[in-house]
Amino acid sequence: MLRLVFVTYIFSLCVLNIVCMSIVNPGPKYPPTKGEVWPKPQHETTENTYFTLNPSNFKVKVTNHTCATVISAIERYSYIIKSKSGGRRERKIVPGSKRRRHGDDTQDLHQGALQELEIQLTEPCEDYPYLEMDESYRLIISATSKLESASIWGVIRGLETFAQKFYFSDDMNEIRINASQVDDFPRYQHRGLLLDTSRHYISVSNILKTLDAMSMNKMNVFHWHIVDDQSFPYQSEKFPDLSLRGAYHSSMVYTKEDISRVVEYARVRGIRVLPEFDVPGHTRSWGNAYPNILTDCYIGDEVIGLGPMNPIRNTTYKLIRDLFQEVQTWFPDKYIHVGGDEVEMDCWRSNPEIREYMRNNKLTVGDLHAMFMRNTLPLLANNSKVVVWQEVFDEGVPLSNDTLVQVWKYSWIDEMVKVLEAGHRVLFSSSWYLDHLGGEWDALYAADPRQMVRDATGSDALLPAIVGGEACMWGEMVDDRNVISRVWPRASAVAEKLWSAEEPAGAAGAGGRRWRNSRASPPPEAYHRLEEHVCRMNRRGVAAQPASGPGFCLP
Amino acid sequence: MLRLVFVTYIFSLCVLNIVCMSIVNPGPKYPPTKGEVWPKPQHETTENTYFTLNPSNFKVKVTNHTCATVISAIERYSYIIKSKSGGRRERKIVPGSKRRRHGDDTQDLHQGALQELEIQLTEPCEDYPYLEMDESYRLIISATSKLESASIWGVIRGLETFAQKFYFSDDMNEIRINASQVDDFPRYQHRGLLLDTSRHYISVSNILKTLDAMSMNKMNVFHWHIVDDQSFPYQSEKFPDLSLRGAYHSSMVYTKEDISRVVEYARVRGIRVLPEFDVPGHTRSWGNAYPNILTDCYIGDEVIGLGPMNPIRNTTYKLIRDLFQEVQTWFPDKYIHVGGDEVEMDCWRSNPEIREYMRNNKLTVGDLHAMFMRNTLPLLANNSKVVVWQEVFDEGVPLSNDTLVQVWKYSWIDEMVKVLEAGHRVLFSSSWYLDHLGGEWDALYAADPRQMVRDATGSDALLPAIVGGEACMWGEMVDDRNVISRVWPRASAVAEKLWSAEEPAGAAGAGGRRWRNSRASPPPEAYHRLEEHVCRMNRRGVAAQPASGPGFCLP
Repeated sequence: MLRLVFVTYIFSLCVLNIVCMSIVNPGPKYPPTKGEVWPKPQHETTENTYFTLNPSNFKVKVTNHTCATVISAIERYSYIIKSKSGGRRERKIVPGSKRRRHGDDTQDLHQGALQELEIQLTEPCEDYPYLEMDESYRLIISATSKLESASIWGVIRGLETFAQKFYFSDDMNEIRINASQVDDFPRYQHRGLLLDTSRHYISVSNILKTLDAMSMNKMNVFHWHIVDDQSFPYQSEKFPDLSLRGAYHSSMVYTKEDISRVVEYARVRGIRVLPEFDVPGHTRSWGNAYPNILTDCYIGDEVIGLGPMNPIRNTTYKLIRDLFQEVQTWFPDKYIHVGGDEVEMDCWRSNPEIREYMRNNKLTVGDLHAMFMRNTLPLLANNSKVVVWQEVFDEGVPLSNDTLVQVWKYSWIDEMVKVLEAGHRVLFSSSWYLDHLGGEWDALYAADPRQMVRDATGSDALLPAIVGGEACMWGEMVDDRNVISRVWPRASAVAEKLWSAEEPAGAAGAGGRRWRNSRASPPPEAYHRLEEHVCRMNRRGVAAQPASGPGFCLP
Repeated sequence: MLRLVFVTYIFSLCVLNIVCMSIVNPGPKYPPTKGEVWPKPQHETTENTYFTLNPSNFKVKVTNHTCATVISAIERYSYIIKSKSGGRRERKIVPGSKRRRHGDDTQDLHQGALQELEIQLTEPCEDYPYLEMDESYRLIISATSKLESASIWGVIRGLETFAQKFYFSDDMNEIRINASQVDDFPRYQHRGLLLDTSRHYISVSNILKTLDAMSMNKMNVFHWHIVDDQSFPYQSEKFPDLSLRGAYHSSMVYTKEDISRVVEYARVRGIRVLPEFDVPGHTRSWGNAYPNILTDCYIGDEVIGLGPMNPIRNTTYKLIRDLFQEVQTWFPDKYIHVGGDEVEMDCWRSNPEIREYMRNNKLTVGDLHAMFMRNTLPLLANNSKVVVWQEVFDEGVPLSNDTLVQVWKYSWIDEMVKVLEAGHRVLFSSSWYLDHLGGEWDALYAADPRQMVRDATGSDALLPAIVGGEACMWGEMVDDRNVISRVWPRASAVAEKLWSAEEPAGAAGAGGRRWRNSRASPPPEAYHRLEEHVCRMNRRGVAAQPASGPGFCLP
């Protein structure tokens, strides 16, 4: 029984074949590629010749540099590469399934065994990843294979590419890698994933799993939307009551040690952890311990509940200052996300004390929001950089030019242009909300913020200040049971849009040409490449769900 | 950050409160009930008094009957009831979260410890569940608790209800059950779940997990859509080549032992296993081993691929006869599903040999489909009963009155009326496709086939012949990684619609009244009850996903 949603697909077959016949082949809808990389490298040339891997006789060495992060990356990837050989000796060829180029044994030419990969790191070791870090690398697979990069972040990205290029021969007896050269770098600097751990608690082990998957997709910012209205799982040392009264359960908290483990696990993978403490809205759970920092909302003379933070009380700012000081010690990133979205201003407007304050100071509620943010930003550590949701910009809060404004609402093209013309930088998320379940990966793949702004302005002038974007997994409908399969491989689509070249070079011949005229769909080759990538994630312990239709991963 | 899809929800708050304020409370969106049953029993009276459970001092006994199936059910449920006490000693009360009636310690009155449950089975033991089986039961929780039923199937359903009625006291120190009486029976006889194991292979262990979940939801038919175009995982003994060449991989098959294990696991839970071998369409994977039983499809003079079974060759029917003979030995159910949907008739029309046959015999392609089904049905075992997709009825194939016609397409009301007026029985699935991801559980809950037919015909006359329905999980986008969380708790909505009374008695007071005037949404109490049920499924090892929004399950 075909799904009703496939009707469009069948219809297009009717048009192309004139006779309307929906011939279905047995086997996977999109047979996976073999040894192709996700996200697609900027430049890659691949030969038909290949090397084989003998896991016990292969090593990665670093010639001119050593640093602990690189050494640990080498250990990690050596394990990944060598364990590829384990337990998958037998393969059934399904007649009728198409084979991809690299898998065609008759065409390729064996060049001997791969002995080693030499890593040439040309600049000093760095400690912590940052927005402007250099992630470029060159990978050469040949008789003398090497990976060159100026930075350890490039080395880490290159090792991931290297690991992805191995594949099994059709008879499953050999692990192979094609002679090739990859020159690669990211298109956008900030390639993030937001995870909301307030609507549902997500276990530390699933956060680490998420970081594994991010590194497989070359994403580099874990945006941790750690607290919100529903629960406050951040376990503060200064304010233990916040989680004691605000977490769902005493077991559903993140301790200082948990956070430090997440930050370190991310760091060695070249991933920044961007904490978000969203103020002054989305703070209802703070009020379980500290109701006085929130606003009483009224209907008439009756208090109907608590609303956003109270912007006219000193106690509010004192708590924010002291808490943020702790947060910025625990999270070493230069950036902190202070939210600022969806403030329930009608609650402020309903409160007699605040109404009087506004009257006395001749302020609108919009001014009040701006005042709150103006008061809050100086409470951050010196040299802090800030990310805010677009409302903060919209309310006219003075923001320094290095502030990142995260665009998430409708009319995103106009909004991006406005933010950019005001001299700020943009993070794009509007089209990349993973909680919209209708959005399969190919729909997410259609969005490209720089392309949209270029189309709207007819110029490239504003594009560099669009520094990246984030896939956002809001937590209303995901918990530990389904968060991994809901995020992956859909976030992989966003990862590729943020890493790869605008128009993948040499994409799939005639099909590719058709695709280039239509921005709505991914290039045809991407469907096959993502199948391989999903199986790769599965094999490496990430329970990614099927990408695009019927198929299977080799066990 | 609120999801954009919640805009409607916020808007309604604006209307109700006049002042447009979206006050969010911390804690779960729908605090779970305590000890309430899903699907909702037909009649239930609950006292404010309760008994406590001491797991080491409680037993279930059967007075007047014993049979192996009942004994195994008692063992299974004793384990479930007693293990509820394990590992969940501590509970954090979240201020602001609402408590439900049964959890209010001050109101309830302790009646002592529950000593035993006595099972009174009044009719002989039966072996295998069947369409007309009696699943009714009476459960009385009192100083002398008992479960009465005429049949073992009622005993099994009653034990599930009994297990669901236990809950923890707020301080987590006591397991309680309220004094109550439940008189219960299903509204529909056939309450099924279709699982497609061809588009993606589903492991036997996930099939068994699915059966566990079905029994928790009192569903009684596992419709196993075992093979299809993409792969043929059924490992026949008579025709081993079918899976040898048609399965995705040699490890992705169901052996005779696997099938026997599934059938037995289902049987002891009162679940029938309805195998589907869909003919003559959806058979492309059969052609890997036996291309000659399929039709060559042409464009002009050129063969472009294989299509449906060839309806004019004896070899086709011979294979079907011999295979179905084996299938009906391995699957003991009286019913077999022979598919009959979405036959690619343009392929038949394109084939010169078949065109000539139609010309010579003055047949249309519709007649050819009818002829195929007419030829196929007599190949089944004597006294077999048949389920078909609606197309078989639509093509005018003569069907016996006990045939179940499964309605799955649009215009389902008209179709149901037509099928019923022709004297056949209906299985309804159109509104219950679980692969349509937009459809959350409350959308699935809105459909009720008997209600629709009554509204359309203005009469109850046709309703009894609507014997039930099925939630359908087609396999394009699910595999072992996400199938459980995608099916549950969405299939729970279908399970309740098929089991419970048309208008749940005493549903949630004023909210309930509003609900009764609008058929679009579930009663408000169901949102809270389903939260408890999801946590119950999680606790019993079924990785059901969140039902309706933010929340958590006690660890």
